[in-house]
Amino acid sequence: MSAIEPVLRHLEKDFDRAVERYLALLRIPSVSTDPAFAGETRQAAQSLSDELTELGFTASLRETPGHPIVVAHHPGPGNNEGPHLLYYGHYDVQPADPIELWDSPPFEPAIIDGPHGKRVVARGAVDDKGQVRTFIEAFRGWHKIHGTLPARITVLLEGEEECGSPSLPPFLADNKAELGAANIAIVTDTNSWDIDTPAITYMLRGLLYVEVTLHGPSRDLHSGMYGGAVLNPLNAITRVLAELHDAHGRVQIPGFYDDVLEARPDEVAAWRALGFDEKRFLGEIGLTCSKGESGRSVLERIWARPTCDINGIWGGYTGLGAKTVIAAEASAKVSCRLVAAQDPERIMAGIKGFLDARTPPDCRWEIKSFGGSPGIRVETDNRFMQAARKGLKDIYRRDAALIGCGGSIPVVGWMQDTLGLESILVGFGLEDDRIHSPNEKFELKCLKNGILSHAAILAHMADISG
Amino acid sequence: MSAIEPVLRHLEKDFDRAVERYLALLRIPSVSTDPAFAGETRQAAQSLSDELTELGFTASLRETPGHPIVVAHHPGPGNNEGPHLLYYGHYDVQPADPIELWDSPPFEPAIIDGPHGKRVVARGAVDDKGQVRTFIEAFRGWHKIHGTLPARITVLLEGEEECGSPSLPPFLADNKAELGAANIAIVTDTNSWDIDTPAITYMLRGLLYVEVTLHGPSRDLHSGMYGGAVLNPLNAITRVLAELHDAHGRVQIPGFYDDVLEARPDEVAAWRALGFDEKRFLGEIGLTCSKGESGRSVLERIWARPTCDINGIWGGYTGLGAKTVIAAEASAKVSCRLVAAQDPERIMAGIKGFLDARTPPDCRWEIKSFGGSPGIRVETDNRFMQAARKGLKDIYRRDAALIGCGGSIPVVGWMQDTLGLESILVGFGLEDDRIHSPNEKFELKCLKNGILSHAAILAHMADISG
Repeated sequence: MSAIEPVLRHLEKDFDRAVERYLALLRIPSVSTDPAFAGETRQAAQSLSDELTELGFTASLRETPGHPIVVAHHPGPGNNEGPHLLYYGHYDVQPADPIELWDSPPFEPAIIDGPHGKRVVARGAVDDKGQVRTFIEAFRGWHKIHGTLPARITVLLEGEEECGSPSLPPFLADNKAELGAANIAIVTDTNSWDIDTPAITYMLRGLLYVEVTLHGPSRDLHSGMYGGAVLNPLNAITRVLAELHDAHGRVQIPGFYDDVLEARPDEVAAWRALGFDEKRFLGEIGLTCSKGESGRSVLERIWARPTCDINGIWGGYTGLGAKTVIAAEASAKVSCRLVAAQDPERIMAGIKGFLDARTPPDCRWEIKSFGGSPGIRVETDNRFMQAARKGLKDIYRRDAALIGCGGSIPVVGWMQDTLGLESILVGFGLEDDRIHSPNEKFELKCLKNGILSHAAILAHMADISG
Repeated sequence: MSAIEPVLRHLEKDFDRAVERYLALLRIPSVSTDPAFAGETRQAAQSLSDELTELGFTASLRETPGHPIVVAHHPGPGNNEGPHLLYYGHYDVQPADPIELWDSPPFEPAIIDGPHGKRVVARGAVDDKGQVRTFIEAFRGWHKIHGTLPARITVLLEGEEECGSPSLPPFLADNKAELGAANIAIVTDTNSWDIDTPAITYMLRGLLYVEVTLHGPSRDLHSGMYGGAVLNPLNAITRVLAELHDAHGRVQIPGFYDDVLEARPDEVAAWRALGFDEKRFLGEIGLTCSKGESGRSVLERIWARPTCDINGIWGGYTGLGAKTVIAAEASAKVSCRLVAAQDPERIMAGIKGFLDARTPPDCRWEIKSFGGSPGIRVETDNRFMQAARKGLKDIYRRDAALIGCGGSIPVVGWMQDTLGLESILVGFGLEDDRIHSPNEKFELKCLKNGILSHAAILAHMADISG
C-alpha cells in the first residue's frame, strides 16, 4: 500500500474536526490594517504556531516592526534527502466593513447551505485562513498516520498581507540563509478554475496603492457666501479623477502601457478554450455587461492587463441631512493593478505626473504611497509543477487549468528576488467567494479537496530527488 | 430728550452683561440636523422663550413634528397704533464637524483678540445666535428704560433653519392670522458690508440640496479579481460629476439658466462702486484667484448667479491604510444656489435629467431631496426700509450699503407667499466670520453695533403711522 492512501482515508474521516479547527481560527478578528486589532492578530499567529509545534515542527513567532511572522521547520523523515518545501500563507484578514451588509457577524462563522453543499461565511473564510487550513490539515494527516512528514518543510505565515506586507521583504532578506534553503515555495492564496476543476496560477498582477488629497481653500467655506466664485476641491477632484481613463477604457497615466507585454496568441487561445462564462461571472455580481479596455476579453483584462481603480473617495459633509459647505480638501484612494514588466516606481512617477499636470490653481496634492509590487509570471514546466499537477489530478480526477489571477501576491516576487525561490501557486478558492467583501465564504467541498490535494501533492513532491 | 437716547446709553453700560447672556446661549449645542442633540436644541428654545417672557412678551414653545418654534408677542405701548413688527431669527446651529480643526471646543465659547478688538469663537457665534442676541438685547434696553417696547412686536425663532426648515412653512400656514397681523418682517441673519459700514440685503439666493447615490454591482468587489473588467461606481461617479460644469464654469444641468434674470447695468455699476477687495476676500481663505462663470465679477457670481457645488462625496474604503475594493456604490451631496425667478422644482427635474442622461450601464441612481427654496429680491424703497436705513445711520454714522447675499434665507420667501409679509434684511455678520466652518466667530464690536442699531431702528419704525 502506498504511503498516501491511509493519509487520505484519515483526512476524510477527520474532516468534521478539521472544520472545527478552521472555525476556531475564523473567530479571531486578525484585521491587520487596523491597530485596534493588534492583539487579536497576534493571537491568530500564536494559535497557528502552537498547532505546528504539536505537529512536530519547531515553530515560533518572529517579531517584526508590525505583526509577527510565524516560521516553522519540520525535518521530514530525517535523511536530509529529497526536496525542501516552503509553504506560504497569511493569517491576517481584510477589515469587515461595511459591516451592516453582512448577513451574520463577520467573526462568528456561520455554516449555511449553498448549491455545492455546506459553506462557511466569515471574514477570512477563504482569504487566507481557509487556504492555510488546507495545507496544515494535510500535514496533520501525514503526522497522524506516519508520525512524521515525507519531506523537509518550512512554513511561513505572515500577518500583514492585507496591508501591503511592510515587514516581509526585510524579514526575508534578514533570514535568507534559513528560508532560502528550500527548493520551492508553495503558495496557497489562489483559486480553483471551478469547484470541480483544480488550477495552478502562473500569472499574478502587482499592485500600486496611493492615497491622494487635493488641498484647496485654507478652511471649509459656506457654500452660499463663497459658492460660484471660488474653487471647490470636491468638484475639482472629480474632474481630475474622471480623466484617469479615456473613452476606450485606457488608463491615461503617462507611460502606463510602455512596458506592458501583450499576451501571446497561444495564451489568448488557451484562455478562450477554458470556456469562461462571462455572463454568469457578471450576473453573479448583478451586472449584465463588462467594462474596460476595448477589444479585450474579460479574462485578458483581469489576468493580463493593468488597471486603475478608485478604491475610496471622501470629502466634505457625509453625515445625515444637509450641510451647505465647500470643503477645504478632497481625498481618494487609488490603486493600479500591474502586470509583469511594469515597474511600480515608474508607474508611481506617472501618477504624480498625471496629478501635477491637473493641479487646479491655488491647490496642492498630498500623496501617500502604501507600497507597490510588480506583476509576476512563474515557470509552468518544472518537476515541482509536475508533482503539483499530479497531486491535483489524484483528487479531482481531471487536469488542472493553467490560469492567471487578477490579484496580487507580492510575496511571490519577493521570494524570487530575495531567496531565489520559484513558487507554485495552488489554491482552492472560487471566484464567487466574496473575498474582501461582506459575506466572504468558502465551500466546505473546496476546503476538503484542498486538504486532500495538499496531502497528495506532498506525496508527489517527496518523490522528487533533491 | 428723545426716547432712544437713554436706551442707547443703558445698552452701552450693560454690554458686558449682554455678552454673558450671549455666551450662555452659545454653550447650548443646538445642532438641529443631528437627532442626538434634540434635547439641547429644545433647551435653547426654552431659554429664549423664558427670556422674552421676562421682557414682557407672551412667549411659548410651539410644538412641530421637528424642533419647537418660539413665538412671542409684545403689545407695545398699548394703544394698538403704529406698526406691528415681526422679528425672525433661528436658534439652531450647524454641526461642528470637522471638530479636529477647531482651535477651541465649538460649544465652549472663547473670547480672543483680533484686529477689531475682542471676538467670540464658537459654533453659532454669529449664525444665528449672535444675530438673535442683537434684537433681543435691543428689546431688553427699551424694556429696562421705558418699561415697555415702542411698537407691537412678534418674535418668531425657529430651530430648523440649518436643516431646511421642514416645519416652518406649515407652521406659518397654520398660524397665518396670528403671524400675518404684522406689517413687516425684520430678518437678522445677514452681514454688514464691512465692520464700519452697515448693510441692508435685498437679494438672497435660494437653495436646492440633493443626495445622490450611484448603485452598480450588487456587492463590493475585490479589485484584483474584478478590476479592469467591470464598472467601478467610484470612477463612474467622478466622470458624471465632472460634467456638472463646462470649461467656462457654466452649470450643465438642462434648463439651468432658462429663468435667470441678468443683473441690470445700474446694479452692476452700484456693486462695482462698493470697491469690493477681491484679493483680500480670496486671501483670507488662502486663495489667489477666483473661479466660476467666465466674464463675471466675484460679487455678481455670489449675489446674482446660480451655482452647483458638491458638498460631500463618499464611497468605498475611507479608513486607515489600503483596502483593495471596488465599492458597490458611490454617493455625493450636491446643492445648487438659485437666484430669483429660478424654479426649484424645474431645477430638480433638470438634475434628474442630467443624471439619467449619464447613467452607466447596469447602474441606477437613488436621489434624495433635502428641499428647495427660490432666490429672493425684496423691495428696496418703502417706509420700513427708510426707517431701517435711518437707524443704521444713527449708529454707524454712514449710509447702509444695499447688497446681495449668496446664502439662502428661505423664510423670506415663505413669509412673502404665506403671510403676505415683506422683509427687511438687516444683520451684523462679517464675511470672514467662518459661518458653517471650524472656528466660527463674531466680533464683539459687531454684536454691540447690532444691539444699538436694532434699538435705533425700533425707534424709527415706531414713528411710522400704522
